[in-house]
Amino acid sequence: MKKNMLPLIGLVSGAALVVWSILIAGDIMSFLDTPSIIITVFGSFAALMISFPFKTLLNIPKVMKVLLSDPKDKRVDLVNLFAELSRKARKDGLLALENDIETIHNEYMIEGLKMVIDGVEPDTIKEIMELKLDTMERRHRSGQEVFEKWAELAPAFGMLGTLIGLVIMLSGLDDPDAIGPGMATALLTTFYGSLLANLIFIPMASNLSLQTDEEVFTGEMVIDGILQIQAGANPRLLEEKLKTYLSTDELKLLSSEKEDEVGAASYE
Amino acid sequence: MKKNMLPLIGLVSGAALVVWSILIAGDIMSFLDTPSIIITVFGSFAALMISFPFKTLLNIPKVMKVLLSDPKDKRVDLVNLFAELSRKARKDGLLALENDIETIHNEYMIEGLKMVIDGVEPDTIKEIMELKLDTMERRHRSGQEVFEKWAELAPAFGMLGTLIGLVIMLSGLDDPDAIGPGMATALLTTFYGSLLANLIFIPMASNLSLQTDEEVFTGEMVIDGILQIQAGANPRLLEEKLKTYLSTDELKLLSSEKEDEVGAASYE
Amino acid sequence: MKKNMLPLIGLVSGAALVVWSILIAGDIMSFLDTPSIIITVFGSFAALMISFPFKTLLNIPKVMKVLLSDPKDKRVDLVNLFAELSRKARKDGLLALENDIETIHNEYMIEGLKMVIDGVEPDTIKEIMELKLDTMERRHRSGQEVFEKWAELAPAFGMLGTLIGLVIMLSGLDDPDAIGPGMATALLTTFYGSLLANLIFIPMASNLSLQTDEEVFTGEMVIDGILQIQAGANPRLLEEKLKTYLSTDELKLLSSEKEDEVGAASYE
Amino acid sequence: MKKNMLPLIGLVSGAALVVWSILIAGDIMSFLDTPSIIITVFGSFAALMISFPFKTLLNIPKVMKVLLSDPKDKRVDLVNLFAELSRKARKDGLLALENDIETIHNEYMIEGLKMVIDGVEPDTIKEIMELKLDTMERRHRSGQEVFEKWAELAPAFGMLGTLIGLVIMLSGLDDPDAIGPGMATALLTTFYGSLLANLIFIPMASNLSLQTDEEVFTGEMVIDGILQIQAGANPRLLEEKLKTYLSTDELKLLSSEKEDEVGAASYE
Amino acid sequence: MKKNMLPLIGLVSGAALVVWSILIAGDIMSFLDTPSIIITVFGSFAALMISFPFKTLLNIPKVMKVLLSDPKDKRVDLVNLFAELSRKARKDGLLALENDIETIHNEYMIEGLKMVIDGVEPDTIKEIMELKLDTMERRHRSGQEVFEKWAELAPAFGMLGTLIGLVIMLSGLDDPDAIGPGMATALLTTFYGSLLANLIFIPMASNLSLQTDEEVFTGEMVIDGILQIQAGANPRLLEEKLKTYLSTDELKLLSSEKEDEVGAASYE
Repeated sequence: MKKNMLPLIGLVSGAALVVWSILIAGDIMSFLDTPSIIITVFGSFAALMISFPFKTLLNIPKVMKVLLSDPKDKRVDLVNLFAELSRKARKDGLLALENDIETIHNEYMIEGLKMVIDGVEPDTIKEIMELKLDTMERRHRSGQEVFEKWAELAPAFGMLGTLIGLVIMLSGLDDPDAIGPGMATALLTTFYGSLLANLIFIPMASNLSLQTDEEVFTGEMVIDGILQIQAGANPRLLEEKLKTYLSTDELKLLSSEKEDEVGAASYE
Repeated sequence: MKKNMLPLIGLVSGAALVVWSILIAGDIMSFLDTPSIIITVFGSFAALMISFPFKTLLNIPKVMKVLLSDPKDKRVDLVNLFAELSRKARKDGLLALENDIETIHNEYMIEGLKMVIDGVEPDTIKEIMELKLDTMERRHRSGQEVFEKWAELAPAFGMLGTLIGLVIMLSGLDDPDAIGPGMATALLTTFYGSLLANLIFIPMASNLSLQTDEEVFTGEMVIDGILQIQAGANPRLLEEKLKTYLSTDELKLLSSEKEDEVGAASYE
Repeated sequence: MKKNMLPLIGLVSGAALVVWSILIAGDIMSFLDTPSIIITVFGSFAALMISFPFKTLLNIPKVMKVLLSDPKDKRVDLVNLFAELSRKARKDGLLALENDIETIHNEYMIEGLKMVIDGVEPDTIKEIMELKLDTMERRHRSGQEVFEKWAELAPAFGMLGTLIGLVIMLSGLDDPDAIGPGMATALLTTFYGSLLANLIFIPMASNLSLQTDEEVFTGEMVIDGILQIQAGANPRLLEEKLKTYLSTDELKLLSSEKEDEVGAASYE
Repeated sequence: MKKNMLPLIGLVSGAALVVWSILIAGDIMSFLDTPSIIITVFGSFAALMISFPFKTLLNIPKVMKVLLSDPKDKRVDLVNLFAELSRKARKDGLLALENDIETIHNEYMIEGLKMVIDGVEPDTIKEIMELKLDTMERRHRSGQEVFEKWAELAPAFGMLGTLIGLVIMLSGLDDPDAIGPGMATALLTTFYGSLLANLIFIPMASNLSLQTDEEVFTGEMVIDGILQIQAGANPRLLEEKLKTYLSTDELKLLSSEKEDEVGAASYE
Repeated sequence: MKKNMLPLIGLVSGAALVVWSILIAGDIMSFLDTPSIIITVFGSFAALMISFPFKTLLNIPKVMKVLLSDPKDKRVDLVNLFAELSRKARKDGLLALENDIETIHNEYMIEGLKMVIDGVEPDTIKEIMELKLDTMERRHRSGQEVFEKWAELAPAFGMLGTLIGLVIMLSGLDDPDAIGPGMATALLTTFYGSLLANLIFIPMASNLSLQTDEEVFTGEMVIDGILQIQAGANPRLLEEKLKTYLSTDELKLLSSEKEDEVGAASYE
């Protein structure tokens, strides 16, 4: 099971559980009501159009794809990469790193290394890279805020739909037999609003928030590594320092890789 | 579709959806009740009069117009402008910027440049410009707070109206047939309060908050640019630095503009 | 219409709206229930007695008077005053300011100027004045917190009253005709609690919070002005600097005053 | 009326109001239901046992006693004490303060003075005293957090009790006459949970929070005073500086004491 | 009674109270409904799968074990240990500490001491140890966030289940006798969601948060101690300084241990 499928599995199994719990006691048809879906989904989306600029809303599909994608840079790999680059820089000078840039996938790290090679001063590198990290974080948080706001507005429009249904039902209370079905329909929008918020929007906002936290933390590690390479730090110390950014699990992973490497190295 | 029409489109389509969802099931007339509208809208406005000073409330129409206006300064244009000014300042000295001031539209940037030309010290310029940014932010946040407070008070007065309706209905419970319509009317104020909050006040406060964030961020970029011009920074480095304030989309826009410019320049 | 009457107008018109909306549909007498008022108002006040020290509660009437009083110091006037004092200090020395102290109304500014005249060091003046501002803010915030807590406790005791009413009504459910009136009475405490919170306590806490913000901001401006006078700053620069504390509206007011002054000055 | 009796008076009068409002409309016996009290009080306490370490829960009675105790150190007295100590230290040297230590009641101040007499460096004294203040604040906040959590859990277990009551009543809905009393009993746990939270736990947490704020503020004043005595500050200036920690009321108290003292002194 | 059993005791007694309060009034069987349990527990878990990465969810059992484990390092023991190490370092030099490392159980302290022995500079030690503490805190907070999110989602899915039950019951409202049992079943999911949140997830998140706070505080004390040993601080002063991290209870414990030690020492 690949890790990045988890949100999809969660979504599908959550939806399946809801459908199953409907089926065992009643009829799924009584839960399908097109106007109820429209007022809840599109009503809250109309309010989102007032809340956010156009380009942020255009980003929604892109943001949803982020949920399913693997994190691009594993911190463990970065520690190894930095250790290697640092050894090279010590032996052949900072300019020797130019050839390695093409093999690096992390855009952010490439930009930092280019500045190191260009001889930009450490303080300027630090300032520019922190600003870049900040701008990246701002952009990601805005995607997350869309889902947080939607998680707030969807149940609100669900409740509005229920109020509309109740007022209509109560103002035309001629037939007592119609109370039950009328009320059932009125409650459907509350059901949709709550389902959308709790199964989709709140979990997605959580997920995006955690991913952004991770990226910012990785970014801080990259800044640290870049500045140490520039300062000509001892490769061993650099590695020790960067390892403090790793969790216990990542450290285990790193040391197992190391053993393999050492094993391989002994044949050289 | 112009970007600044989005809030209006959101408002109109949201209201249309609500009206439509009423019409398909009932009668719009049972939702129009003047006293209910008055107690919800004006009752919450009376509470706003206690909460805010007069001048802040007078600003409400002005703030609402801000929602529909295009952001004045595109950050992409400012990067180009700063790059140009920096080249000029390097070639002809800081005083040569005096003529360019008239062509700049950004009030905040003009004030900064004037101080640069007047030879005010960098620390003083930074302090004054940050204070100005702070004062601007305070003023904008106060507009935003009015809508946040209204979003809190409108449903509260809606609920008060419903409580009044319920008490009246229950204390005169002679005719069981009157329960339905009485309750329907009582619920109307809750409906209005919730609609005002979720379709108008909460989204507007969100929108204003994001716009203020953007303006503050642009302001920080202007301070950075001004101080670098004064310090006689390399125009290329200045441009690189300021580009870190741009999002990926803005960077794409900038590079496409650049290509046009380069294309045009080759004919010179 | 004087500005400081606004909270009173808001309170009276809000209460009038509530009374009107009761009268058009029912009888005001069914909303007057002494025990309901007592449990809501005094019950929540009893809880306030546990929450706050005696002296803070004794301050409530004083704090309510603050709501209706004009802000003592207009920032615009302070800018003019500082500009004048700075000109005098430059011409006649800092000691010459001693005579002006009597004409100043701002207690906080007087204390600062006295320290300047006494030759206290700038760092000490700054430290003492910031501490004073801090102590002032702490005291005002404690008044604001009383109303915030009351806004939380009044609806809670309203709900307690309703629970009491419901339990009594339900446990003695012999006469079905008594359900309506019993429930109406039970709901009255919820109505009172909500009315007190939303028409009185929440708006008052907002108002006090904004007033404190303003006073702190003015205080920061006074500290800035005092320290610049002591440093012998150029009166023109000092004025420019202090003007950054003003909003756009205040700046317009200032420049119109200036024109009058210039006009008047030309006759001298 | 002594100030420290206020929380007790609030508690008793609040409870009396609740009992009175029950008695005027119904029978107090229908509000006494042992199982309801047990599930609300002990259920929420069981959840507290999961939330907090044993020693924090053991502190509850001690913390409740704090509510009724007078604040140990009045800031006004400390200003006078510091002024006196400062005069003595200037005249007879810092070592002369050793005899005064026994007359001081404030533990925290004694520790500071001992370090001064021992000749510990100012930076170390400041660091140690701030750390001590921090540790004290952490301990007090943990007592406050217990009541905040209880205020959250008591109504939650009240609602759980009501849900249990409702499910039992509804699942055995044979006798329509039993609905009323069954529902009344079900609501009792909600009533208890809400009463405990709003009359006891929320106000107690508020009270403890304010007391901790006061103690921290007093502690900051003590650090300031100690460091000034060590630096050999002018007793008059020291007094002026420490007076900035006093509120307007405390200042009035101080000046009235001063007049008495001056009056007494004139006879010497 | 061992302290670390408290959460288990709380959980068992809370569950027992709930079961007891069901049994005294009704039948436990009417509270056991498998589909209700499934939708509440697994529905909210499906949403958790969207919210968190796989490895965080895998950690749930490990985190639950933390709840029941004794805190590894008592701060009191650490004060004694540091005092001892400091005496040794002063007498025999920093390198002499190498032998003691094996007897220390605190991983974090060992790493710090190793750096001291390796002669790493104080600033680097401080930076690395603070980063390590930060990484540890981030990891622990992520475990805590899972339970906080679950405490939010479980009642939400409980309410969704109730809505499903209500809609089914209301849309098929033929038999009035079925209303009661139908509603009872519908309420069961709300009951489960609320019980899970308030008896398990909220208290567990509280507990984990407090444990993390404690560990961070202990970590700060270890950093302080390590740096002081490296700086060759006086063992007596070091002990005094570290004692400021202890609460009053811990101080009592320490002094009673000290007396025993002194007593024992007198026989040497």
